[in-house]
Amino acid sequence: MRIFAVESSARAASAAVCEDGVLLGQYFLNSGFTHSVTLMCMARDLLRGLKLTAGDIDVFAAAGGPGSFTGIRIGVATVKGLAWGAGKRVCGVSTPEAMAWLPEAGNRIICPVMDARRGQVYNAVFRRTDGAPARLCEDRAITIEELVGEAASARGGEEFVLIGDAAVMCLPRFLDAGLRARVAPEAVRQQCAFGVALAAASYTPVSPGELRPNYIRAPQAERERPQV
Amino acid sequence: MRIFAVESSARAASAAVCEDGVLLGQYFLNSGFTHSVTLMCMARDLLRGLKLTAGDIDVFAAAGGPGSFTGIRIGVATVKGLAWGAGKRVCGVSTPEAMAWLPEAGNRIICPVMDARRGQVYNAVFRRTDGAPARLCEDRAITIEELVGEAASARGGEEFVLIGDAAVMCLPRFLDAGLRARVAPEAVRQQCAFGVALAAASYTPVSPGELRPNYIRAPQAERERPQV
Repeated sequence: MRIFAVESSARAASAAVCEDGVLLGQYFLNSGFTHSVTLMCMARDLLRGLKLTAGDIDVFAAAGGPGSFTGIRIGVATVKGLAWGAGKRVCGVSTPEAMAWLPEAGNRIICPVMDARRGQVYNAVFRRTDGAPARLCEDRAITIEELVGEAASARGGEEFVLIGDAAVMCLPRFLDAGLRARVAPEAVRQQCAFGVALAAASYTPVSPGELRPNYIRAPQAERERPQV
Repeated sequence: MRIFAVESSARAASAAVCEDGVLLGQYFLNSGFTHSVTLMCMARDLLRGLKLTAGDIDVFAAAGGPGSFTGIRIGVATVKGLAWGAGKRVCGVSTPEAMAWLPEAGNRIICPVMDARRGQVYNAVFRRTDGAPARLCEDRAITIEELVGEAASARGGEEFVLIGDAAVMCLPRFLDAGLRARVAPEAVRQQCAFGVALAAASYTPVSPGELRPNYIRAPQAERERPQV
């Protein structure tokens, strides 16, 4: 199965094509330019580079949240458009789940942490032995204190692998609590479309019209809208 | 320091831009098309995507060997041309050393293995604790039997992390010899330009005219040339 995936849930954006778990190509840009400018050009360049068209893809997948509201919307809209035009199906993949596919397996806890501002991180926790990451909790927004407290109370001596743009910020808090923890190596630290493609293989694709982002929190505009 | 790197030592090709150890962008294609067709287009697309020109780059680096003779030549020629045009300096990085930067650190032995045909792998061995990989032997072409025999006689119980296009082929041979071994995760299994950029930061750049590939073995055409 050939999967085209995009990741635009944080500062970096990426597009990837994966066939039966093998990466055929990936284009990753951490440029700081807005995803609405870069992502479609990356998709075009990547498909051209592989001499593929949207019609050659079986499933289109996006990081469906949580993450940057605007980024998630751009990624989801991109795969909706590509898939709709080509008459294909789509997947919205959990952003932390896609990240959990990237680091090394082994008997360890994979802990994606993305800066969600307001003192929180977007997070879920996974046990990764071999094969697919096993989810230990739902995707959520949580304070670092709560996350470290939960990890300390549940610990079985396993190592925590922190991954994502808040990993370096979270590491000392884990270590101060006496937990064994490390940051994922730079080569897999940031979420990327290859992780989305790996995770998407276990999802049931839906029609483009059915795909919805999963923001978890209400957007700022809704939270702050005056009650009338 | 801003480094532009290319990797074309095996089937996949990639280009990356790295600034002070942080990946700004990477374009990776494992398409099977010849590097002479793909690599310069990838370089152009990546620089455009980052809104950079060759003049914005401090050092141009290529995987300088060992590896595919044609691939290495294309990579080295690409950075020579780009750097010469922009009046910049270049690095030819050891291919196995670039690979050794990609997997997780820890007290383990990183063992890059690239299919060199004729029953051999291109290889070097590194100890990776934290920071830079520490080289334990020179780059070489070696049979898998010799490599496993050497690993078994030198073992201190450390885990061997096999990385590269011969990793899956070598794993059972390591395990059969009673060694602790694993294959690097798919996300960092293949050599890529980001590894070249990370390794290049510790090299002293030279002028484009001084850069020479390191083939290790004589090319087939030279080995088989009739003596006249």
